[in-house]
Parts: sequence; C-alpha cells; structure tokens
Amino acid sequence: MRATIMHAAGDVRIENVPDATLIEPTDALLRVSRACICGSDLWPYRSMERSDRGQRMGHEAIGVVEAIGADVRAVKRGDVVIMPFANSDGTCIFCHEGLPTACVHLAFFGNQGNDGAQAEAIRIPYADGTLYPLPVAQEDALMPSLLTLSDVMGTGHHAAVVAHVAPGKTVAVVGDGAVGLCGVIAAKRLGAEHIILLGRHPTRIALAREFGATDVVSERGADAIEHVRQLTGGHGAHAVLECVGLGQAMDTAIEITRPGGAIGRVGVPQDAAMTGSQSAFYHNVTIGGGPAPVRAYIPDLLPDILEGRIQPGLVFDSIVDLNGVPGGYRDMNERKSLKVMVRP
Amino acid sequence: MRATIMHAAGDVRIENVPDATLIEPTDALLRVSRACICGSDLWPYRSMERSDRGQRMGHEAIGVVEAIGADVRAVKRGDVVIMPFANSDGTCIFCHEGLPTACVHLAFFGNQGNDGAQAEAIRIPYADGTLYPLPVAQEDALMPSLLTLSDVMGTGHHAAVVAHVAPGKTVAVVGDGAVGLCGVIAAKRLGAEHIILLGRHPTRIALAREFGATDVVSERGADAIEHVRQLTGGHGAHAVLECVGLGQAMDTAIEITRPGGAIGRVGVPQDAAMTGSQSAFYHNVTIGGGPAPVRAYIPDLLPDILEGRIQPGLVFDSIVDLNGVPGGYRDMNERKSLKVMVRP
Repeated sequence: MRATIMHAAGDVRIENVPDATLIEPTDALLRVSRACICGSDLWPYRSMERSDRGQRMGHEAIGVVEAIGADVRAVKRGDVVIMPFANSDGTCIFCHEGLPTACVHLAFFGNQGNDGAQAEAIRIPYADGTLYPLPVAQEDALMPSLLTLSDVMGTGHHAAVVAHVAPGKTVAVVGDGAVGLCGVIAAKRLGAEHIILLGRHPTRIALAREFGATDVVSERGADAIEHVRQLTGGHGAHAVLECVGLGQAMDTAIEITRPGGAIGRVGVPQDAAMTGSQSAFYHNVTIGGGPAPVRAYIPDLLPDILEGRIQPGLVFDSIVDLNGVPGGYRDMNERKSLKVMVRP
Repeated sequence: MRATIMHAAGDVRIENVPDATLIEPTDALLRVSRACICGSDLWPYRSMERSDRGQRMGHEAIGVVEAIGADVRAVKRGDVVIMPFANSDGTCIFCHEGLPTACVHLAFFGNQGNDGAQAEAIRIPYADGTLYPLPVAQEDALMPSLLTLSDVMGTGHHAAVVAHVAPGKTVAVVGDGAVGLCGVIAAKRLGAEHIILLGRHPTRIALAREFGATDVVSERGADAIEHVRQLTGGHGAHAVLECVGLGQAMDTAIEITRPGGAIGRVGVPQDAAMTGSQSAFYHNVTIGGGPAPVRAYIPDLLPDILEGRIQPGLVFDSIVDLNGVPGGYRDMNERKSLKVMVRP
C-alpha cells in the first residue's frame, strides 16, 4: 500500500510500504477515506533530522473499518469511524475519567515510529477504545466537519474548556491556525460574549469572524498586549486559548489574561521552559491544557455538527490525493493553505 | 515609634521612626499587638542589596484600631482586627469577585517601600476593605491561630483551593514551612483522603502528621518523585500544593502530579522561568495560584478556628519582642525556628 513518510525536514515522500494488517486481537484495520495534514506536522517538517527509517505521518482520519480482531466488540466491518490522533484502550482509569490522552496504553499515530493516517490504510490498536462510529455514510456532506473531531475541533474545544470559557466571558484566542479557529467556534458555542482573535492573515481573520470572533488583534508582542487590554477595560480576557505553542505566544497569553483568569494551552510546546512565571503568579493566572482528549469530547460536539450548528470543516481550504501530500505540506508551511484534507 | 528596617541581606535593625499617622480619610491607624516573620521575608534577608533608606518589614498582623479617617465605616476605634498581607479597597471589581490580591489599589505591606507591621503601629490604607474585625478580645487564647489568617493559613488554603482538593483526593504538599503545614491543614479540612508531605525536618514532620499528613517523603529530586509515585499507584497525586517557590520545587510538583491533576502554587517564585513546561503539557497538568486572597478566605476559615476545628497557630514555635526581631530572622533563616511571632 502507499503511505506518507517523512525522512527529514522538508523531505516528505509517498512510498510503497507493506500492507497494514491486524496484529493484536484488539486491532482494527482502517481503510482511510479522509486524513489531514496538521499544523503540528509542520514542526518536524521544519526541524526533523534525517533518519534512515523515516516517520509515517498523519494522525487525523475518518475511514471505513475493513477488518477487526477477535476481541473487538464496539466496531464492525463497514463502520464509518473517526480515528482520534491517539489510541486509547477505553478501559483504564484515565479513559474512564474522560482523559483518554493519559491512557496507560496511549500512543500517538504518525509519531514516535507509529503508523500514520496519511496512507491508504492504517492498523488501529485498541480499536474499541479508539475508534468512534459515525451515523453517516462515507460520502456525507458533513465529512469535513466530522473529520475535525479527530483533532482540531476537539483541541480547540479543550482549550476553551480548560480556560473556563462560559456565558458572558471575554475570550482571547492566540493563533489563527485551524486549532485557533476551532477555538473561536468552541468559545462561541460555550457562550463567550466577546471573542478576540490574535492573528494576521486576512482569510483566516474573515473565517474567524464568520465563526464568531468579535474583535481582531493583528499586532504582535507588546503592541498586541496593549491592544487586548484596551479592548478589555484594561484588565485582559477572562479566558485565553493558547493555540500556537511558542514561548512568545505563551508570554502574550499570560500578559493578556485578566487577574484570576485561566489559559488553556493546546499548542504543542516547542520551547522547554514556560516563561512569564512571575507574571502568571502575581496575577493568579491558571495555566492548563495539553493533548486534548478529543475522543471524549466527540459525544458532546457531534450533535452540533450533525444538526448544523457548527461548521469547523470550513478550515479545510485544500484537498489533495496521496500524490499531493508533499505539496500540501509545502503549502501549509508557506501558509498558502490553512489546512489540507487528504483523500488517499 | 519603633519599627523593623532591613538595610541589606542579613542586616535587620529596630529603629526609631516617625509615628504612624492617618493621611487619607480612608486610613486607619493600627496598634500592632501581634506580627510575624514570614518565610517570604527570608528571601530579601538572603539577597537584598544595601539601600540607604532600607525597607520596613512585616506584612502579617493582628492589632487594635487606634484611630480612623473620616471616611472609614467598617471598623472603629478599639476593634481587634486582622491585617492581611496586602491592602485592598473592598470596592473594585476584583475585590467583589473574591480576589482582593488583584485589587486595583493593591499594595503589599512591608514591601516596595510600604510600611511594615513588625513595628509598634502601622498606617492601614483602605481600612474598610483591608481590615477584618474579630469577635474576640486582644488576649484571647486563639490569637496565634487567628494571626495565621493574615497570611499562612489563607495561603495554604489558597494552594488547596487552586489545586482542586476535594473529598477522596490524594494531595501532595511540597515544602514543610509554615505555609506547607497550613496546606496540610487545608487539605485535611477539604476532605483529602491521603496527604503526602514532602519535607525533611523532624519537628515539622511531626506537626504535619498532627495536622493530618498520612505520608512523608523526605528525599529530594528524582528520588522524591519516585517515592511519591510509589505511594500513588504510579500515577502521582490529584492535587499538589507548591509551597516553596524555587524552580526545583516546581519541577518536582509537576512530576508528582497525576495526569489531569492540578498544582496550586503559592511559593513566591524566585526563578524567572517555570520549567517543566513540556511535562506539564503532556500530562494536562494545570498550574495556578499566586498571592492568596487571604482576606476573602477569612469568613470561611474563621469559624473553624473559633470553634477549635483547626489549630494553625501551632506553627509558631517562637515569640519575640521588637528587640528580638533580628534574632528571629536569624533563627528562621537557620531553620532553628519554624515561624516567629512578634509582640511589639
């Protein structure tokens, strides 16, 4: 079968690899109908050292179950399912507590040597706890939005939940990538009164406004902080969604959070240290977040997509087949594309 | 009158200064009956650069109101009152929201050039919003415990609240100073099932056990982390109270927090950066805290002291008069005293 392999920064290739197969009795084999290129795939695209074996890529998908192991009960051949970005067993204490991204059997797809979804098919460990069956057909018009439940919509929602977004609150979203834009959807959905997007790209800003952003701050650094304070009576936002992962973005997030407020951070941190510690302390700012338990959020978010209340699928502005994946990485890295859907 | 002035690291003197007086109509004049030396006073005691003017010291007190300005309504001459470590106006949006340590008129006593309470008397700005009248006489036997409501008991409580301590939870307390020990009281009071104290000093450990600690971890660094994990089924504590303020303590706190858990940090941060950012992220650990809104907590904690359910006053193991204050700093710095009460 054909799959996407990253060999080094900037070197993404489509190659023939052995067909995905069942190995464990808890596995399922997923025929990928839609995958994505993720903003987090761009970090290795910019920095990965050359490796002989390379890394299979892709951690967001919708597909059709093609085969199941002997112990799989919750999905069956032919099911259309969401594949969240990490597998989880569905039975451990963390899965039961709604944090499957702390599962004792956690593994991230398309990472750390694991198989990826930018491929014709993929083996799914712990299929019962990982895959989420959908009540729609493979070619449903809602597919782009449903696909975002595998990562970016659930991740934006996680940022909003951790930041305690609630009716009447002022929310600031740092970052205008797909996760930041889904954060705007999530903030609006949870009742935020004011939603300030920190971003600079006209098409993304337009989409953010469509999703519910009430204000846009396009400056950076100290000017951005000052502008947000002006928009918030001098105090900052109650809830801040950090959707970038760089130290400067976190510093900005801390400085624009109202005393006593909270930051939900879902940008994968690219810097070892979290700076701004003193400022966060003196303002009693709470900082939380991490890999979103997107699978646990699906039951909450799915009805809103099925019934047309939110349309996160609008973040996709490009569709490619497997041959188009290397170009998709390039376009996303150059910000020519916001988010690329892959149809193998 | 006589007051404590720090001139440089290790140089604390009792000096004659102009009598405290009313200046603003919202002021009160407080005759100090009891003050404290705080663990946070030891930071400048170890590091302060010599200054011509010096810094008045002391931010925790109980005293008797001696005079009030024309606009003061909530306290009157003769009232026995708690003076929290910072003044707050009682009317701004943050005071109304229960975070007086974010008051728009916030000022810390005994800090940044402000007057201190290790003195015969002190001027109290915004007396109505700052002072808390007590229903007891000046020489009540509960005075040591009531005095802790000016800082350490409220601060330990804040750490526990921010860390979401709740019935049945496992709590770890990093630090065996007065705040850490009050954190143990707070954790027990909020229903924690297991309370692990990270500390090394036998008398403090004994007090922690009296306050409700169920386990003690006396190692440091990696060994401490391993020991806490052993005590918590490998996962760490639900709630961690960081009561030190050094980078290593925060690193330890992050590593011993269960995935999805929370850290309440109240140790004044002595390091600019908060390290362990990646680890906190991948475990979805929430980090919050800051200067405790101790005044806002008094109505909640006071009945427990008045009715004998908690005895935070046991943290005082030394009482000095003003002449004894320099020696009190020395003893606390050398860990000969846990916490020193000052009776001017």
